Amino acid sequence: MKVQKFLDINNVQVKDEFWSRLQDLVIDTVIPYQYEIMDDKIEGAEKSHALENFRIAAGESEGEFYGMVFQDSDVAKWLEAVAYSLAVRPDPVLEEKADRLIETIGKAQQEDGYLDTYFIVKEPDHKWEDLHEAHELYCFGHMIEAAVAMKEAAGKDSLLQIMKKAADLVCRRFGKDKVRGYPGHQEIELALIRLYRATGIRRYLDTALYFLDERGTEPDLFIEESKVRTISIFDMDPYNRKYAQTHMPVRKQDKAVGHSVRAGYMYTAMADIASETGDAELAEACRRLWNNITRKRMYITGGVGSTVHGESYSEDYELPNDLIYAETCASVAMAFFAKRMLELEVKGEYADILEKELFNGILSGMQSDGKRFFYVNPLEVVPGVSGVLPEYKHVLDSRPGWYRCACCPPNVARLVTSLGEYVWGESNDTVYSHVFVGGDARFSIAGGLTITCETGYPWNGNVRYTVNAEDSSEFNFAIHIPSWCSEWTLKVNGNKTQAEKKDGYAYLQRYWNDGDVVELELEMKPKRMYANPSVRADAGCVAFMRGPIVYCFEETDNGAVLQALRATRGSEITVVEKKLGSLGKYPVLCVKGKRLVSGTQLYSEEQFRKEDADLIAVPYYLWGNREKGGMRVWIHED
Amino acid sequence: MKVQKFLDINNVQVKDEFWSRLQDLVIDTVIPYQYEIMDDKIEGAEKSHALENFRIAAGESEGEFYGMVFQDSDVAKWLEAVAYSLAVRPDPVLEEKADRLIETIGKAQQEDGYLDTYFIVKEPDHKWEDLHEAHELYCFGHMIEAAVAMKEAAGKDSLLQIMKKAADLVCRRFGKDKVRGYPGHQEIELALIRLYRATGIRRYLDTALYFLDERGTEPDLFIEESKVRTISIFDMDPYNRKYAQTHMPVRKQDKAVGHSVRAGYMYTAMADIASETGDAELAEACRRLWNNITRKRMYITGGVGSTVHGESYSEDYELPNDLIYAETCASVAMAFFAKRMLELEVKGEYADILEKELFNGILSGMQSDGKRFFYVNPLEVVPGVSGVLPEYKHVLDSRPGWYRCACCPPNVARLVTSLGEYVWGESNDTVYSHVFVGGDARFSIAGGLTITCETGYPWNGNVRYTVNAEDSSEFNFAIHIPSWCSEWTLKVNGNKTQAEKKDGYAYLQRYWNDGDVVELELEMKPKRMYANPSVRADAGCVAFMRGPIVYCFEETDNGAVLQALRATRGSEITVVEKKLGSLGKYPVLCVKGKRLVSGTQLYSEEQFRKEDADLIAVPYYLWGNREKGGMRVWIHED
Repeated sequence: MKVQKFLDINNVQVKDEFWSRLQDLVIDTVIPYQYEIMDDKIEGAEKSHALENFRIAAGESEGEFYGMVFQDSDVAKWLEAVAYSLAVRPDPVLEEKADRLIETIGKAQQEDGYLDTYFIVKEPDHKWEDLHEAHELYCFGHMIEAAVAMKEAAGKDSLLQIMKKAADLVCRRFGKDKVRGYPGHQEIELALIRLYRATGIRRYLDTALYFLDERGTEPDLFIEESKVRTISIFDMDPYNRKYAQTHMPVRKQDKAVGHSVRAGYMYTAMADIASETGDAELAEACRRLWNNITRKRMYITGGVGSTVHGESYSEDYELPNDLIYAETCASVAMAFFAKRMLELEVKGEYADILEKELFNGILSGMQSDGKRFFYVNPLEVVPGVSGVLPEYKHVLDSRPGWYRCACCPPNVARLVTSLGEYVWGESNDTVYSHVFVGGDARFSIAGGLTITCETGYPWNGNVRYTVNAEDSSEFNFAIHIPSWCSEWTLKVNGNKTQAEKKDGYAYLQRYWNDGDVVELELEMKPKRMYANPSVRADAGCVAFMRGPIVYCFEETDNGAVLQALRATRGSEITVVEKKLGSLGKYPVLCVKGKRLVSGTQLYSEEQFRKEDADLIAVPYYLWGNREKGGMRVWIHED
Repeated sequence: MKVQKFLDINNVQVKDEFWSRLQDLVIDTVIPYQYEIMDDKIEGAEKSHALENFRIAAGESEGEFYGMVFQDSDVAKWLEAVAYSLAVRPDPVLEEKADRLIETIGKAQQEDGYLDTYFIVKEPDHKWEDLHEAHELYCFGHMIEAAVAMKEAAGKDSLLQIMKKAADLVCRRFGKDKVRGYPGHQEIELALIRLYRATGIRRYLDTALYFLDERGTEPDLFIEESKVRTISIFDMDPYNRKYAQTHMPVRKQDKAVGHSVRAGYMYTAMADIASETGDAELAEACRRLWNNITRKRMYITGGVGSTVHGESYSEDYELPNDLIYAETCASVAMAFFAKRMLELEVKGEYADILEKELFNGILSGMQSDGKRFFYVNPLEVVPGVSGVLPEYKHVLDSRPGWYRCACCPPNVARLVTSLGEYVWGESNDTVYSHVFVGGDARFSIAGGLTITCETGYPWNGNVRYTVNAEDSSEFNFAIHIPSWCSEWTLKVNGNKTQAEKKDGYAYLQRYWNDGDVVELELEMKPKRMYANPSVRADAGCVAFMRGPIVYCFEETDNGAVLQALRATRGSEITVVEKKLGSLGKYPVLCVKGKRLVSGTQLYSEEQFRKEDADLIAVPYYLWGNREKGGMRVWIHED
């Protein structure tokens, strides 16, 4: 029922100046580094024990469980990233390491399929007792995702066999006329759908749908559970039902609430089922939630979840730049959601957000060296306040090292390595270019053909597609025209073409021949952006973008006290290649402005003196890679 | 050593359109209401038990202690307010009620002078064990203040005798070569100084100084105490030394930190001793702290303490309008501090802040009906956010009823009833008008004379003083010229006079005769105020004042979404008498502006559409008395 499907990683080769470097960084640095972290080999890092937990559960080692209740998920996300990385660039040594780990995981699994080292090693008598907090279904879900990726991306079946057994246990246990259940942290739903698609086994899809539809029914499972369970992992309040989106049936939900990652994973599963089964009610719920997020609850960077309290969504238009949460994982989840929405209906707004997340909210999570990561992605950092005052403790001015259980780093790793799966799509009669990433894509349309894309995106707006096909054939070539671009031209074989534009996509319907070339030129002028007047945090301010890239003002380029800057309204914005320390050269934006000069008075009848100032904005995702200091995305305009 | 002393309440009669109404409100409503609260006679109010605790301790009743560890302080503050109210307006019934209560207090006192019902009734074995948290010295201090007020304002000696005995116990117990100690919550220091001044007994002053100078020495008393004590009232962290200002010797402190009320009471005591004893080092510390507060850490309303975490000061210029704490009690404490600084040196800046607190930060605490009170005084209230989201739970959009132990309401009550003590001062050769309040003042200068003041302050800037003296005599008449006023004229007996202006005061040196009239005309134009560019919360915004009154924009006058308003820079501000619902008529400010109209887009390249808007600002201290809704002091300017 999907209107189009994204090409999978084995049909897409990424060869892109921007992204290949990042994929290399993840493959060469992040993945090996994470393994060492999980194996407790990095001096000075917090103890992980994640691998050792599996070894103990497998009987290969002795000791006690150590770590978070969801420590297993780190291993799962690592394996998933490894699977994609093997598709991007084969590596027998890494493959061997993964095989060995999968073997251990297999040994750790119990006879009935159960697989969660916290409960196997530490609390064998309390399995499934605390679905609210214990993250068993979450860990199962991540390992199922890893298993599907290993099968699909790396052609390895071993983990899939293990996780089918685990998934079968879940399906046997939970459902109508079985034990009632749904996870505290959604994840199993989208994983079971992936497993269904990889295996064709319908019960996985059915159980995913059961978990979704049982959620939010009365009485609340977590409240009931809290009355009888004999363990509690975090002592969370089960009556805070919005936190885990159990406050109403998911089909009725119309506002994004609660923990933003849980929410995002849930919406992803909802959209996935909606497009898979044609469930119109679920599709409509997805559209409502999408609209609420993207029209009222999202930062210009794609960040979602504006409060640290519950790492949650808060209220419409309540988007503080300084108190923000905007977890990297939540942006990853939004990319998942956007991709699934594009399989439900091809609309540019989904591709716009997918692009926004990729180039801003997700990438800002990773340090340029691949070794440190933001969990929280602020749009304003204030020296002496951010990371210091109690309200702002969570907002750091530089990426920290890996935490004991590091949700965000491996999420970035699996997303960047699997990037190829977010770029191209096809239906019976159309090939889709959703995001501009250089490389080759193999389509099955018209008996099979390849399209090669060359582009300098996101730094310039030139995209060149070359069709490689044995036979001439008629099909539609649909190219996403980002909403940030109002001036663009399309040429086919050098001739300017008027393409039909519909829902954010340009459609080229014609007979395509081998060697046909499509050239897209997107005018990429820097531009000022204004927030809806209902967003009080951004009132009186302006933000700068160029193409899909959101820019920000760092203290290192603009001096301290960034709130004293005033960008001059309507002045020219020039684009200059500038060396940003060890980061290398990037296009920065130069804007005329003023700086208000602090006097000794706290309040004054006189306006404070203004000096001319040349303001420099750098790509947001690069912030925090040079000298520490203040940062603002939104600056005052005058 | 004081350069001038404020007249006490028995030498000042307040007859003032603005203040007499407020004094009546406190005397007729707040004081009787508080008694009923403390006596648990108000249905629906939280149980206080404050009077019953004393009755139990006195053997007049049976039962258990109930309430906060500092529950006694409510009774003390009530008695103190009663003392002033009896000076303002004698009331035999109220006096009888106070006498009866003082009798009970006397019976509750133990043989050695000890007087704290929490420990007498509930924890007799743990007295003085937890100075950090147990508030014994705080409660002693408040009752000493009440005793001094009863003696000085109401001429009643009974409570003074009780509290001298209590103070003697404190002086016997704590000091050099005795038990080491200082209070967790400062208050005893300023109380002992008042007691010294009322009795002439030097040890009270010495012990006050001991408490101040012992504070912040090493090792930290509260840390040491926490290692050995067997009770803990609140389980507070003794290592958070800034919270209670024990992080360094008070003489060395140069930044206002920690709990803003504790800080304010401490600075008050420091300034009081400095002027009393000529302690130059202490005076210098007071100036440093004063400067830090008033130049970097104070809201335009006089509010101090910008974070709910510890109800504390935070960082220089970090003055969020929405997350604010700005406790009413902290503004009361700032009025205390300002008054003491004026006795150290006559400088207009102290009178400016005194005035600012009186007309804004303190008064905003009280509902117009005298029955509900703000503890937190925000400068921005956002519907759906303030009082709702976790970060903003403490910021209410309307004044709540009395809490179980209500620090702020009785603090407002004692301040408003004792207002006469903040108005006039005298030295050997000068009489001082510090704050413009109508009424009569009796000076001892020149053998005794009276000055009558008539004024429409703060709504107009006309002040008329009439001298009533038997004999002609030469002295200086010093009148504070508020810093908000740049145009003013002085007439003596109808003739324009050039007075010497020094440090914010106009000095009229002449022979004064009976019937001489001084007329001051302060030009009271509404004006725009700007915050230092270092204050990020106010960037791009303007606030409005007229005279000492800070204005604010309420939703009920200006519509919702106040951040979408733009006051037009430089446009005329007109003053209009407007009926504010049941509050009556007040001068409001009308400002031309625009309203940005929300579109459907969250972010847009286009600026959002603007409509003309007539903006209306009302006096800040009156906010929250009409329909609930948003409020802003600082609005954006365009």
